[in-house]
Amino acid sequence: MKRIESTQNALVKHWKKLVTMRKEREKTGEFIIEGFHLVEEALKNKDQIIQLIVREGVDLPLLWDIDNLVIITVTDSIAKEISETETSQGVFAHCKQQTVSETDMTNWRKVLLIDAVQDPGNIGTMIRTADAAGMDAVILGKGTVDAYNPKTVRAAQGSHFHIPVVRGDLLEWIERLQDKDIPVYGTALENAIPYTDVKSSDEFAVILGNEGSGIHPQLLDKTNQNLIIPILGQAESLNVAVAAGILLYQLIKKQ
Amino acid sequence: MKRIESTQNALVKHWKKLVTMRKEREKTGEFIIEGFHLVEEALKNKDQIIQLIVREGVDLPLLWDIDNLVIITVTDSIAKEISETETSQGVFAHCKQQTVSETDMTNWRKVLLIDAVQDPGNIGTMIRTADAAGMDAVILGKGTVDAYNPKTVRAAQGSHFHIPVVRGDLLEWIERLQDKDIPVYGTALENAIPYTDVKSSDEFAVILGNEGSGIHPQLLDKTNQNLIIPILGQAESLNVAVAAGILLYQLIKKQ
Repeated sequence: MKRIESTQNALVKHWKKLVTMRKEREKTGEFIIEGFHLVEEALKNKDQIIQLIVREGVDLPLLWDIDNLVIITVTDSIAKEISETETSQGVFAHCKQQTVSETDMTNWRKVLLIDAVQDPGNIGTMIRTADAAGMDAVILGKGTVDAYNPKTVRAAQGSHFHIPVVRGDLLEWIERLQDKDIPVYGTALENAIPYTDVKSSDEFAVILGNEGSGIHPQLLDKTNQNLIIPILGQAESLNVAVAAGILLYQLIKKQ
Repeated sequence: MKRIESTQNALVKHWKKLVTMRKEREKTGEFIIEGFHLVEEALKNKDQIIQLIVREGVDLPLLWDIDNLVIITVTDSIAKEISETETSQGVFAHCKQQTVSETDMTNWRKVLLIDAVQDPGNIGTMIRTADAAGMDAVILGKGTVDAYNPKTVRAAQGSHFHIPVVRGDLLEWIERLQDKDIPVYGTALENAIPYTDVKSSDEFAVILGNEGSGIHPQLLDKTNQNLIIPILGQAESLNVAVAAGILLYQLIKKQ
């Protein structure tokens, strides 16, 4: 077991950058997760773990299968340095982001497309919801926050290890799916039919858009059909992650 | 127009307490909202506004109906003192919390009950969702965070001014609703039927529970029926606000 005591250590500086800088995460294809629940989920995908980081004094659960993993013990100050929470559990994993092959992508038939959603918590909740609903993948278009932002990872509750999350050009993806006769639904307030008019299916894609401005018109023009979730009270709109949940659970075939 | 320049002013101290302390909000029945969108929603309920607070240099929209309202101009340091956001818009309202009469309560037939939900953002999103779904009221049971927490108010996007949100004893509310033949649904992983098996209706109540432990067993025992939202992928559960959205939009009669 390795031990690091200085916050000036090069590896600690790298971790800190992975937590705070999107650029660093994108350049390296790595990210940091924090807390027992998330690390436990990561352990089911051990090939994604570069090393575990454990604050001195923290005991790892005996049942954890940590054979062959590099474990680094760190001081309280280092744990604070790389923690994003006020009350850190003192356990982290330095991970590789998922890689997805062209063959994997070819097989996706139930896809959530996300256009320019800004809030890291919303993106994380949408990834978790897509996972729960049994979707094949989540594709993040231009202007959407980084899927590996610590707040996003926390809100997704481990779903990053269950479902592929990739960046992509949404216009290209719409074409690609439609070429396979997979219908793509947008969400809009005008020229849209009630979402309950669509039959549930094993093959569909749905686009959710920016919290303020919705989906880019260029994308809406290309969909097979745009859907609306009726507002029955006085709220102007629904939270985008809640809307995603309502749509996915309506559209997906449950048996 | 009144102007305050010192952060030591008694009123500024009161505002600051309303932003940071639940006890102060509960003792006084007041709260602070921030930002153009929320203040605009408050203006539709002018009797709830005690005064508007505007940072010097900020122009109020000409269309705002602010006749007869007390407007207080404050310095940048005071605005920072009472702001909960990093980039404040510099416009606030000091408001009274809603009051609800016994007669109002007697007429509620579509009610969202919330048991011990901890995250202020989740509560706010659930209030917004209940509003959007056309519910009559939201009732917060013991152990649920304060509905007037600034994070809750922000997440609710103005729905505090559209739908009654009250504290109450959930056991008493279950009885009260059932006495009027209004079915009360719980959400649970065991002894539950799929939520899609319930017919939509104009009269129902649904309970959502704590993010980690769900609904208290004592409450689950009293429901007419407990419902489950099936998890089709590998996620352990759904975010509680997303679950509320899926359930409310399934249970409520849309026409």
